[in-house]
Amino acid sequence: MTRKHNFSAGPAVLPVSVIEELKAQLNDLHGSGIGLMEISHRSQTFDDIVRSAMARLRRVLGVPDDHQVLFLQGGASLQFAMIAQNILQGGSADYLDTGAWTAKSIKQAGHFGTARVPFSGKSDTYRQLPASGSWERDPSAVYTYYCTNNTIFGTQFAGAPVPDGRLVCDMSSDIASRSIDAAAHDVIFAGAQKNLGPSGVTVVILSPWAMARAATATQVPDMLSYGVHLGKGSLFNTPNTLGIFVLERVLAWIEDQGMDTVAARNRAKAQKIYDVLDSSDFWQPHAARDSRSDMNITWRLADSDLEPVMVQEGLAADISGIKGHRSVGGLRASTYNACPDASVDALVGFMGEFERTRG
Amino acid sequence: MTRKHNFSAGPAVLPVSVIEELKAQLNDLHGSGIGLMEISHRSQTFDDIVRSAMARLRRVLGVPDDHQVLFLQGGASLQFAMIAQNILQGGSADYLDTGAWTAKSIKQAGHFGTARVPFSGKSDTYRQLPASGSWERDPSAVYTYYCTNNTIFGTQFAGAPVPDGRLVCDMSSDIASRSIDAAAHDVIFAGAQKNLGPSGVTVVILSPWAMARAATATQVPDMLSYGVHLGKGSLFNTPNTLGIFVLERVLAWIEDQGMDTVAARNRAKAQKIYDVLDSSDFWQPHAARDSRSDMNITWRLADSDLEPVMVQEGLAADISGIKGHRSVGGLRASTYNACPDASVDALVGFMGEFERTRG
Repeated sequence: MTRKHNFSAGPAVLPVSVIEELKAQLNDLHGSGIGLMEISHRSQTFDDIVRSAMARLRRVLGVPDDHQVLFLQGGASLQFAMIAQNILQGGSADYLDTGAWTAKSIKQAGHFGTARVPFSGKSDTYRQLPASGSWERDPSAVYTYYCTNNTIFGTQFAGAPVPDGRLVCDMSSDIASRSIDAAAHDVIFAGAQKNLGPSGVTVVILSPWAMARAATATQVPDMLSYGVHLGKGSLFNTPNTLGIFVLERVLAWIEDQGMDTVAARNRAKAQKIYDVLDSSDFWQPHAARDSRSDMNITWRLADSDLEPVMVQEGLAADISGIKGHRSVGGLRASTYNACPDASVDALVGFMGEFERTRG
Repeated sequence: MTRKHNFSAGPAVLPVSVIEELKAQLNDLHGSGIGLMEISHRSQTFDDIVRSAMARLRRVLGVPDDHQVLFLQGGASLQFAMIAQNILQGGSADYLDTGAWTAKSIKQAGHFGTARVPFSGKSDTYRQLPASGSWERDPSAVYTYYCTNNTIFGTQFAGAPVPDGRLVCDMSSDIASRSIDAAAHDVIFAGAQKNLGPSGVTVVILSPWAMARAATATQVPDMLSYGVHLGKGSLFNTPNTLGIFVLERVLAWIEDQGMDTVAARNRAKAQKIYDVLDSSDFWQPHAARDSRSDMNITWRLADSDLEPVMVQEGLAADISGIKGHRSVGGLRASTYNACPDASVDALVGFMGEFERTRG
């Protein structure tokens, strides 16, 4: 068995050690005599896993004690609607449109209120993130909404886009890739399938303000109600038990190294690729320099005819998942937490060779 | 490693062969060089799995060609709301209240229309299912809603509760346990975690009428819209990829044996336990005889003080998960498809010994 160098944007590469830990528990979870997928979500054995996952997430992200963590289903896409129904509640919020995922969220917010868009990067194919203070804020906005990292376009905010006020944040593609100011956020949400685990688990973190506001929402079906899930400790209904197990193990893997160490390695991995992209006009990085992501590195080739050739030759060199999203074209390398240094080195070597033979 | 006899109501026991197939694909899915949890849901390798799962489900359940299959997230609990928002749409439907799960669904329907309840088994702790024609139907009801099998109370409909009209059905706890008349149903839905796989995947099957009606729903967030999911072939957003893989393998395991063979074994397993329950007054079966389930067998003991003793002594005999739900008390054995004959034999032997020593 040869594992390819996997640069998929998500679901994405996971630590091999976590995969092995999963395999070891599938027949018999922690000596319970019941397999991981077969154990009741109400059992003590599983409850211990949920509690550990929540505690680890709190430590890794520095979540304040008075914020609450939920593990839900439905991905970020369901959060787009839940946030609007539970928090926006007919009001108006400022949505920074920095890519396809914010555009989707803006659309869902329209079912439950007004998504005001004071900034949109659409006209320049979302190359550039807005500088803080570069747009006019609505002083009566319920919250400011942003997406920390934009997988398709390869941009990433360095920090919160506004210095104050209520903040709602889609952190799907860079959660637990670096230290954050969790206390500054009222809602943080993320699908797990990039940095935290397999698909089918969604992390949601709510501030006291967000919880209080959600408690005033009316006509919310139980499954869409933060209040209902909070009241049941994420066990209102049967959660994705295997997904939560893997999430807990991935968080342990991050904790064992330390968040800062993981973040530094992410920075270094991305920089190796950016160094190639900046080395000659053969390469055309997509994201503006001050908006570059450490998670998803996007580029075109000066000779666009060579782009599909590069994807094909990459596959022959065991480099998988570098075809860019159809809305940008070109190429993309996703280098999440679990992407090994060796994979980045293989990609960088391949890029050098490709330029030498085709440039 | 000793695997216990697992009678959990869900998540529930899975075929050991499927667990082994899962383990074999976690590092390298079908020779792709990418692990199962790490592969893009847009890849050909994963698309083949989704298509195979859908085709197998169609064959196992006899789903007509003009019905559509979806694999979603959120469990039956999210379907309670989605059905009402997409199909009820402000109208009134007849909901047969045969247990806790129908009661939850009735509550969710109230957000989007009227759930009329022409029958409720609540007053006799849901022992008895209604006989066909025993309640008054609303001729203008948008649909009749029922739950085929009630895990908590151990009751199961032998077939559809009405001979005609639009039918919406929660099949979470007995889907693919026996042959059904899929063509007679407009909506069939089921969480996977009892007969079909791990938690975190929901099966939904829609008739042409249901799809047409859902297409007229307005102000439905994308993730809650059957139309949106249908338009994207269940890949509107990232699905629970590992869950769908396991579902496909469980369906293959059912197909290899044949649905009728599996159903006959389920019948025989349940009967062995009912035979004990009917053999003396030591046992007090909960469900009325004509309403008994082949999936969940529920009982009390004449001496209720012995109930916790039986649970404890069961654990010592490697018999797990027989504590009854708190709303009924007593004991419950869930004998889904993958519950081996050997486990039922062990339980029956234990029950005989328990009566001999304690009766």
